[in-house]
Amino acid sequence: MLLSFYYDLMSQPSRALYIILKVSGIRFRDCPVALRNGEHLTEDYKRDINRFQKVPCIIDGDFKLAESVAILRYLSAKGKIPEYLYPKYFIEQARVDEFLEWQHITLRIGCAMYFRRIWLDPLLGGEKPSEEKIAKLRDHMEMNLHVIESTWLENKEFLTGNTMTVADIFAACEIEQTRMADYDVRIKYPKIRSWLKRVRAACNPHYDYAHQFVYKISGTTPNSKL
Amino acid sequence: MLLSFYYDLMSQPSRALYIILKVSGIRFRDCPVALRNGEHLTEDYKRDINRFQKVPCIIDGDFKLAESVAILRYLSAKGKIPEYLYPKYFIEQARVDEFLEWQHITLRIGCAMYFRRIWLDPLLGGEKPSEEKIAKLRDHMEMNLHVIESTWLENKEFLTGNTMTVADIFAACEIEQTRMADYDVRIKYPKIRSWLKRVRAACNPHYDYAHQFVYKISGTTPNSKL
Repeated sequence: MLLSFYYDLMSQPSRALYIILKVSGIRFRDCPVALRNGEHLTEDYKRDINRFQKVPCIIDGDFKLAESVAILRYLSAKGKIPEYLYPKYFIEQARVDEFLEWQHITLRIGCAMYFRRIWLDPLLGGEKPSEEKIAKLRDHMEMNLHVIESTWLENKEFLTGNTMTVADIFAACEIEQTRMADYDVRIKYPKIRSWLKRVRAACNPHYDYAHQFVYKISGTTPNSKL
Repeated sequence: MLLSFYYDLMSQPSRALYIILKVSGIRFRDCPVALRNGEHLTEDYKRDINRFQKVPCIIDGDFKLAESVAILRYLSAKGKIPEYLYPKYFIEQARVDEFLEWQHITLRIGCAMYFRRIWLDPLLGGEKPSEEKIAKLRDHMEMNLHVIESTWLENKEFLTGNTMTVADIFAACEIEQTRMADYDVRIKYPKIRSWLKRVRAACNPHYDYAHQFVYKISGTTPNSKL
């Protein structure tokens, strides 16, 4: 029985997991969930698909699992993820895990809050934040982008070494999201700029497919200036 | 050579990892770091100990690793963590991982922001937040406490089943932190109240040792009302 994969390409971790599944050559039952229509908020979705009413999630046989990083690790344990993407040797795996755990309340929160307050909330009828608030959100996001530029990408081609792993895919999907809030990460961060190109090249055509709405909504092409 | 463990008992994930190391019977070189004195902010600490200048972290031989969950998984791979605390069977491990990944931007952010804005920031000379801001912080925290009460603790003794795992230890340490901001989680959440007792009983004397400053600063004892 095929793995069922529930996702929305408007969600960053959904895009990351979509790319990882495709690059790994995992076949899955395609289950898009339109968050914009509240398809995740029904009682049926809560009972039958994901008790936390989020995406992404999977159902594998009768095993339901949420949380993108937990899903990645589960699929790796089943031998479905190539070792270059998520190493099996524990020392190398620990370095990738260090990034996957680090990103949640740093890069992820920083980029997601910037995107949400500036683009999503006003779209849903909320107030546009003040200039002061925008500056605060930008400072917080840039503090974490600076750690990517100066620490994670210090002296190497990818975040955890000289080859691409899932860490790079998760990070790139968070950062690409900020295009929609009119932020061009490539202006201030030259290392991030060239690293994003390497991640995209290593993941295409799946990278561009997963980001089709990000490009469309932001009115950008992968290499264009905003 | 002994594992070096850098931590501050004022930090929630430091306490969680301290308890896990002790309950697992892992011997370590004790390296307390006084965050209040900025001991993590020196160039030496950044170069020699943790490039992210945070706690907790470890140095094992010449391998430096940050991020509590990554450290836990590294020690488990080395066979140092008993299987009941962090299962090796991938289906059971996935359920624990699901919690460990879920908590970062939900329970952890919710409890930590409440604690920081209400207790820590004013202590460091910042402004006390307005009543409106406090209510907003409380609502956000309680939204996530509600998920613990009604979903994670639905029909079971612990978060991921009927025995305690590291998931419970991480969660309890985040929740206990809110005592210092004068919040008593036990009033609104009866399941959390009894679960906290079970976690404490399963981890003592290490649980109480790790929480000594939380009890002292909040002027509470483990079972007292605030």
